[in-house]
This record gives sequence, C-alpha cells and structure tokens, in this order.
Amino acid sequence: MMNVALIGLGSVGRGVAGMIAKKDLGITITGIADSKSGGMDPNGLDIASLLASKTRKGYCGDKKISASDVIAQADYDALIEVTPTNALTGEPAIGYIKAALIRKKHVVTSNKGPIALAYKELHALAVKKGVALRYEATVAGAIPIMHTLEHGLAGNEILALYGVLNGTCNYILTRMAAEGLTYEQALMEAREMGYAEADPTYDVQGIDAAIKLVILANTIWGNGIRLNDVDRTGIDLLTPDALRLADDEGCTIRLIAEAIPRKHILRVSPRIIEKNHPLVVDGTLNALTLETDMAKEITLIGRGAGSIETASAIIGDLLFIKDRYVQRA
Amino acid sequence: MMNVALIGLGSVGRGVAGMIAKKDLGITITGIADSKSGGMDPNGLDIASLLASKTRKGYCGDKKISASDVIAQADYDALIEVTPTNALTGEPAIGYIKAALIRKKHVVTSNKGPIALAYKELHALAVKKGVALRYEATVAGAIPIMHTLEHGLAGNEILALYGVLNGTCNYILTRMAAEGLTYEQALMEAREMGYAEADPTYDVQGIDAAIKLVILANTIWGNGIRLNDVDRTGIDLLTPDALRLADDEGCTIRLIAEAIPRKHILRVSPRIIEKNHPLVVDGTLNALTLETDMAKEITLIGRGAGSIETASAIIGDLLFIKDRYVQRA
Repeated sequence: MMNVALIGLGSVGRGVAGMIAKKDLGITITGIADSKSGGMDPNGLDIASLLASKTRKGYCGDKKISASDVIAQADYDALIEVTPTNALTGEPAIGYIKAALIRKKHVVTSNKGPIALAYKELHALAVKKGVALRYEATVAGAIPIMHTLEHGLAGNEILALYGVLNGTCNYILTRMAAEGLTYEQALMEAREMGYAEADPTYDVQGIDAAIKLVILANTIWGNGIRLNDVDRTGIDLLTPDALRLADDEGCTIRLIAEAIPRKHILRVSPRIIEKNHPLVVDGTLNALTLETDMAKEITLIGRGAGSIETASAIIGDLLFIKDRYVQRA
Repeated sequence: MMNVALIGLGSVGRGVAGMIAKKDLGITITGIADSKSGGMDPNGLDIASLLASKTRKGYCGDKKISASDVIAQADYDALIEVTPTNALTGEPAIGYIKAALIRKKHVVTSNKGPIALAYKELHALAVKKGVALRYEATVAGAIPIMHTLEHGLAGNEILALYGVLNGTCNYILTRMAAEGLTYEQALMEAREMGYAEADPTYDVQGIDAAIKLVILANTIWGNGIRLNDVDRTGIDLLTPDALRLADDEGCTIRLIAEAIPRKHILRVSPRIIEKNHPLVVDGTLNALTLETDMAKEITLIGRGAGSIETASAIIGDLLFIKDRYVQRA
C-alpha cells in the first residue's frame, strides 16, 4: 500500500482521483488540495465525497487548509502535482515539488512548467534525497515515452527524436489537408471541437511543442537546454496551397519537433513528410519516433491529452514508484 | 557488474555478444556455447577471439564443452538463450531454460518455442525460484512491447490487441499493393531481398504471427491459450484484385493478429484496414496497437527482425534484471 497526496483538482486531478478510487491499485489518497481548500486523513480520504463537494461548491475540502499545508503535513509517500502549467515561472508548482522532495517524498507531475524550467535543480534535489521525480504525463499524454526511454530502450544510444507533440496543430493540419480548409477555418473548427483555446498562440506558434521538446531532450541527453534554444516556427502562416503541393508529391505537412544532437538541430517547424511515414497521424493524436543505435527507429502513437489518458501516465509513474521504492504493509 | 552465459551463436547471438563487447553495460560473458562447442571463464571470456573462431572454424570454443555443461557449471547471473526456434517441441531450449531456472539463474530468451509452448510451466518455475524469465525479443523484434505492458501501461486494463507481427507477410502485401504484383511475384521478390525463406509456409500461412499472438495473450491475460486456439488464415490466396478493391475505398490489406477477449476473438487473418490507420506500416516493419481502459489506443512501430535490433530487446531485458535483481561489485 502506498499513500499519496494529490495537489490540483482540475480535469487531470479529478481523473487521477477517480481512477485511484475505482481501481484496486494499492494506492490511498491521504492528502488533497485544490486552489481554495485542502484535506488530510492518514487513514485515507473519502474521494467520492470530496469530488462531489468540488462539483457542488467549487472546492473540495477545508478552506483553512492550503496546498502547502497538505504538502508539509500530510502522511504520504508520493506527491501527485497536477496544478495548471505556468510556462513563464513554473510556480507555484516548483515550490510544491521542492517542498515534497525536501521531505524525502517521491513526486509525480503532469506539469510541464517545473520540468521545462527547473529540471536540473529538481532532479538534483531528488537524487540528493534518494527519491524519484517522475513526469511521464508532461509529454504526449498517454504515450509511455519516458518508460520506453528508461527501460524498453535501455542500453540504446538515442541518436535523434522526432515528434508530433501538439494535438491542436495536428488537428488543424489534418483538417486543412483533408478538406482544403484555410488555417482560419480549421482553427475555428478546432475551437468548436474543444481542441483549441480562445487564444491559440501557445499551441499554433509551436510553444507547447517546444516545451515538450525541451523536456525530452533534457531527459535523454541531460544537456540543460532551454526554451529559447529551440528554433521555432508555428503553423499559423500555412496556406491550403502548401498542403496541396505536398499532397501532389504523396506527402503532407505536420508540425514536427526535432532534436538531432549530431547536427545541432533543435527545432519545431512545419515539415513536409511522406504520408506513409509512421509519424503522420491524424486528428489530435501524438506520435514520437526515436532513432537509436540498436533498435533503429521506434515510433509510439497515442492520445496526447484527456483527463483519463493523462491519469494513465500518472498512475504508471505511481505504480513504478510503489513497486521500486515503497513497501508498506 | 552482471555475469551472463550466452547459448546460441547464430545471427542474434553474435549480435548480442558484439554489443556486450562494444558497449559499457556492466555485463560480462562468463559462459558461451554454440551447437558444437562451449567455453567458460569466471573472469570473462574474450568475445572478439571467440567470434573470430566461430567465423573461421564454424564453432566458437572447446568441442568437449556442451551448452548443457555451460548452463550447469558456468558462473553466471543470467542465461541468454538464443538458440533456433523449434515451434513443434521447443527443445532443446525448454530444457536449457529449465536447467538455468532450477539453478536460480535469471533467463532472457528470444526463442518463441519455449514461451509459446511451455510458458505456464516455465513462468511458475521462475516464480518459485525467485528469478526473472524475460522474453521481450520473442515478439516484434526491437519494439519494447513487454516493457510497455509491464511498466508504461501499468494500471491499465488491456482490452484488446491488434498486431502486424510478421515482416515477411507485410513486405509481400506492401509490394502487392504498391506495384500490383501477384502474390507469387511479391514472394519471389521477398526471397531475393532475404525477407522470405525457401519454404515460406511458416510465415505466409500466419503460423509465426499466431505463435507471437499466443505469447502476447498469455503474457497479458494469463489464459493459457495454445497455437491451436488461434483462428488462422494466411496471405497466400490473396489476389491483386482484392488489394485493388481495398485501395478504391482508401484501404489496404494487412495480416492482422487480433486478440479481443470480450468478443472471444483470437485470430490471424488478412484484414481490410484504412490506409491512415497507425497499424498500416510498410515493408518489413512490425506494429502493435493495444486498446486499454485509460490510455485508450497505444500503437508501437519498429523493426521486427535483425541481429542488432533483436539484441536491443535482449539487452533491455538484461539491464532490467541487472538493475532490479543483481548487485555485484
């Protein structure tokens, strides 16, 4: 049995809480917090009633208990940090994660901010404290890319990676190619489907994909790269003509995040790519190709977002920590 | 540091030996055997000279030392069993694996025979002896499907699996579709490329794919299925017309291995499938789609064969065992 504290009760947090409550995973939630309230019980909280309270009142617990209180005081083995991403400062998540690591608690996060901005420092702190810092859910949703790098391809040298890491852009490009839509038309459709934000800048200008590329590159090569190191071009200037010309050659266009250390390439940009290439996936799917010395090219495809899909990645990390580090009765 | 004994010096065995010699993996080969000879040295064998001897003389070591001697007497932590697959009896590999497990040695194999025919018994023996039996390399070559099931998708319920598990068939179908070749023409081309055996029965009638499906299904659901439980149709009766008709509908035909427990489906057969489906890969590639409750569909694509590609899977298993179980100075 492993005890966890869950910080953040947006769509991902509710998905994780729901799956832990539903499945027999040997995981007990002993602390919880949203932005307005918190709760702690060393014997395990009543998740159903907390989620009902969140739906009814907009907060889950006691307004006198904060996230920081839960992190500092609850009885838990691993912190699940799933607060919203702040891509500029990484806060308050960086502070939350540090506080847990300092208490020698394992940390699992879906939050791109802290991992993109402060990976080196957080990783070093986790190593110093002898605990795990895992973040499978930060990149490509349900696709178990970090586990694949860590175990499936252990012993391989990773020579390059290529990824379709932003579902919004992939949806827009798929629709432009399939229906001859303009960028604006496809974006409007993506908004209607709930795949694009009112302000789509973060997605369509490749910032989200670049952040994920930074996380992957630092994980693989430990080279301390930052968002500003990524050459970045978005999809917002692409025309239906460009997609038609690609189509004439048996190709299409996708927003590809690439890291190729031997060529000093670190780039997010629209690329012309053969339609039958494994990376060419449709709609909001994500895909990653790893080029390695022994396995050669390995491609992983799956859903890049979604409450339960992201919970899958977080639960994979939790079970790994439970299996490897935690042994309670 | 971990000591290993390597049994089998065909293309896969030589690939594994070469990678262990080349890379700094903390693995030492202390025992080795081919079908005619063997060698042991608790301080580590000279791999380069053994491989040179194999090339020059056709055998690697001392003709008075057999594979069974190495398995029984060498000082090793894990056995690497990579002798040729015998799909009818699984021998002598089953005997080799049992002998190592009884000595409480971990086992890593690329041999489909023992895992398809005797998984239940071998798995139970490994559990009883407290050692690992790993077989990532038996299915889909370099694709880390077993690691993905074990860790990446931990906590997920696997609802179904769909796979392109035979590169020979996939090559033939790709060429029939791309060039309008007949089955016989495409088979001849596959033979010329070295992708098909002189007697292609095992591949084109779906036996190889069915064996891999049995291994996967037993791993996932532990349901003790056997080769005879698989409904099997090969590709040898397919006509160019069938592929043309599929093409008219934006589809193509692939030999798909499917296991869908809720529908009692366990089948290898040519299926019509949309061209933009992630499982539609070209040439000799392999692909697998797992349908799960949380991650939904996850697809993995990679090379299904090859000496170094298969070595990648074996080394992934060895490093997992080393990391998890073995701690030598």
